[in-house]
Amino acid sequence: MPSTPVTIPARRGKAAHVRQGQIVKVINTHGDQVVDTWAFNVQDLKEFMSMEHSRPHMLKTIPIVGDIMRSNKRRPILTLIEDTSGGIHDTLMAACDCHRYKFLGVETYHDNCEDNLHAAMREIGLEAPETPSPLNLFMNIPVKPDRSLSFEAPVSTPGSYVALRAEMDLVIAFSACPQDILPINGVGHMPTEAHFTVE
Amino acid sequence: MPSTPVTIPARRGKAAHVRQGQIVKVINTHGDQVVDTWAFNVQDLKEFMSMEHSRPHMLKTIPIVGDIMRSNKRRPILTLIEDTSGGIHDTLMAACDCHRYKFLGVETYHDNCEDNLHAAMREIGLEAPETPSPLNLFMNIPVKPDRSLSFEAPVSTPGSYVALRAEMDLVIAFSACPQDILPINGVGHMPTEAHFTVE
Repeated sequence: MPSTPVTIPARRGKAAHVRQGQIVKVINTHGDQVVDTWAFNVQDLKEFMSMEHSRPHMLKTIPIVGDIMRSNKRRPILTLIEDTSGGIHDTLMAACDCHRYKFLGVETYHDNCEDNLHAAMREIGLEAPETPSPLNLFMNIPVKPDRSLSFEAPVSTPGSYVALRAEMDLVIAFSACPQDILPINGVGHMPTEAHFTVE
Repeated sequence: MPSTPVTIPARRGKAAHVRQGQIVKVINTHGDQVVDTWAFNVQDLKEFMSMEHSRPHMLKTIPIVGDIMRSNKRRPILTLIEDTSGGIHDTLMAACDCHRYKFLGVETYHDNCEDNLHAAMREIGLEAPETPSPLNLFMNIPVKPDRSLSFEAPVSTPGSYVALRAEMDLVIAFSACPQDILPINGVGHMPTEAHFTVE
């Protein structure tokens, strides 16, 4: 029986335990939502999924089906096994944080993916040792031939998803990115909820 | 009077204190040597230059003259003010480490940039809190239109250099990358020394 989807509330985070071999499906419920994604070795939270350690091995800026994400000890931690979202994700950008929104002119507190990660981990009794650079699912950051980058709206569609196989017992954490100044959550600048299953 | 160049020995690291406003010139003495580069806030070593926090602000994968590298608190830490090397550097790849060389088939200890960073910091009485993803000066990792990456020889020439202005009081650390399996230190696979000045 398929597991009931868990909600990643709009502008918030959510974390869960995943056993080696289980499949995590991350669903872009409304189609335009970036989901920052982290994975931590449950036995040692200081070992975590690392974009800068994954790229030299997969030899791509964006993983495709079959690619293995690695930890900061270069061990396989998640494998991308299915992707119905159009295949556009990001591995280049840090999670948004309080400093980012100040830079963008926001003078009061703004929800952000860094705080969402730490709150989600605490909700299940854990403390993330730092904020690793996340796998930004559905996030559209084209790298142009002149090496310039830009923040664009997702190409994913409502209900599209990626499936990730856990390569070790791990804690997965998500943030439904609250970015509403740049158009990365769609041209409507409206962050929404997303969902995930573990089975 | 120009300062005497400091040697970054072949396959080794070197660190130095730099005051805000000083210029660090990193010289590719023999032309083909990748120099992994880190910068730490001297007041708080947990604040350090971060590639994933620099890219969203400079909006490029590779900095050019005028671009500002930022810390993990998104504060300016180094500005690239001169570059005679051909402008090809890397911000995508983690420092090489013991796990990397095992993956490449090396069964005994291999010098690596991660260990070089920590040894260089200890040499001046400091402890790096972690191994941030470095600014890999002179390293040639093209991003192709299909988003694939490859390890290529440098385009820099003997004596070419980059100049970086310190935007805070900081500790700079370098590793003359000991990679001799992939051709990133030239097609001869021969790591060499490099040099730097601070003035």
